Amino acid sequence: MKILLIGASGTIGKEVKTALEADHEIICAGRNGFDVKVDITSTESIQEMYERVGSIDAVVNASGGANFAPITELTPEINEKGIESKLKGQINLVLLGLNHVTDHGSFTLTTGIMMDDPIRQGASAAMANGGVKAFVKSAAVEMPRGIRINSVSPNAVQESWERLESFFQGFEPVPAHRVALAYKKSVLGAQTGQNYEVY
Amino acid sequence: MKILLIGASGTIGKEVKTALEADHEIICAGRNGFDVKVDITSTESIQEMYERVGSIDAVVNASGGANFAPITELTPEINEKGIESKLKGQINLVLLGLNHVTDHGSFTLTTGIMMDDPIRQGASAAMANGGVKAFVKSAAVEMPRGIRINSVSPNAVQESWERLESFFQGFEPVPAHRVALAYKKSVLGAQTGQNYEVY
Ligand SMILES: NC(=O)c1ccc[n+]([C@@H]2O[C@H](COP(=O)([O-])OP(=O)(O)OC[C@H]3O[C@@H](n4cnc5c(N)ncnc54)[C@H](OP(=O)(O)O)[C@@H]3O)[C@@H](O)[C@H]2O)c1
Ligand SMILES: NC(=O)c1ccc[n+]([C@@H]2O[C@H](COP(=O)([O-])OP(=O)(O)OC[C@H]3O[C@@H](n4cnc5c(N)ncnc54)[C@H](OP(=O)(O)O)[C@@H]3O)[C@@H](O)[C@H]2O)c1
Repeated sequence: MKILLIGASGTIGKEVKTALEADHEIICAGRNGFDVKVDITSTESIQEMYERVGSIDAVVNASGGANFAPITELTPEINEKGIESKLKGQINLVLLGLNHVTDHGSFTLTTGIMMDDPIRQGASAAMANGGVKAFVKSAAVEMPRGIRINSVSPNAVQESWERLESFFQGFEPVPAHRVALAYKKSVLGAQTGQNYEVY
Repeated sequence: MKILLIGASGTIGKEVKTALEADHEIICAGRNGFDVKVDITSTESIQEMYERVGSIDAVVNASGGANFAPITELTPEINEKGIESKLKGQINLVLLGLNHVTDHGSFTLTTGIMMDDPIRQGASAAMANGGVKAFVKSAAVEMPRGIRINSVSPNAVQESWERLESFFQGFEPVPAHRVALAYKKSVLGAQTGQNYEVY
């Protein structure tokens, strides 16, 4: 299978690559390149990426961010990162990628536990996660040519724990290689419209 | 209670007004005015509205839209209405309204059944609904001064059935006055972080 992995250099992306590269061709993408450069906040950049990589069997996205801010300090401007990156960035990967994915191919996006188990400063990320989850569930019912679409919802991961612990008090972080299994299940499994929780 | 109702002239908004106006002062808002003009897709317009109405006890939003389109025809541009209106419009009503709502006041936003029970052409609206629902759940845990926040998720309503039936085949539409009860529960009840489903 030829798999396009956006965010391949990231904490989670690296483990997804490891989980899939033995049996599949992985095309690694990110703002700093690797195989192909992309900034998911730009539709032009997404379009250029798809033109460069040609036809692919699966698109996996492990990139996209949102700002953390207390609700009393969250402004429309601070909320824009979650809108442009984690939410629209991921959805545009699907909308602009549909014609580049082979029959019975798949898209796998990323959400996160914050939408289900809210934390302080997490409203903007929760918004983006919830939007992606609902989009996936809805888009799945009318994807053409047997194309599937799922998302993976990671808990905080152990490799990011030093940065995240103060926000996620009392959470039990999971190793990134466990999270990577859910992406593998999405790419190689048969289900669609799922949000695989790794909590 | 002094309640700001955005979308007061709409199918659902009218019933919310009827359900609350006997015992409360309702300030009706929408693009075409009534008591105050607002376009929720503009942060400047939202800010002007809040400055005009002064301090309020509750904000109820029954406005905001998204485009319907088959997933194969949904473009980033067509998806923008859902982003700007139903998603960001509602969230900005909260972010810009926080300082105008009295202690123990509330916000009530609107989602919809399409995120839970997907239909064709509904991915953009589902995205917006899911984003609003997750935002509400997350924002609720850190709202200041005892302010509550909920959303109402209506099924297709009977009053809109002529327009909606072909999209919602097999759904059982609900009367708008039943939907209005959920807004009343949100404004006058004690819960927060809820998405009241009227299915
Ligand atoms: N880490 C966690 O504990 C955790 C938990 C739950 C959910 N998540 C979610 O999982 C995803 C990945 O998290 P992570 O911790 O692995 O992130 P990370 O370590 O910061 O890696 C992010 C990856 O995405 C790329 N990237 C960032 N912005 C991009 C953009 N605009 N366009 C294209 N590529 C971009 C980065 O490469 P370049 O810098 O080269 O672009 C990098 O490869 C995120 O959506 C995050 O919210 C993470
Ligand atoms: N009807 C249904 O069956 C149904 C089902 C589920 C969910 N919903 C949701 O419930 C909400 C209300 O639906 P509805 O059917 O009652 O809508 P509607 O009859 O079309 O009424 C919309 C109301 O919102 C106002 N409005 C529209 N755009 C606005 C904007 N940008 N800024 C400020 N006000 C605006 C309109 O007044 P002006 O034109 O004067 O601005 C009107 O008062 C929507 O979010 C809809 O998605 C409806």
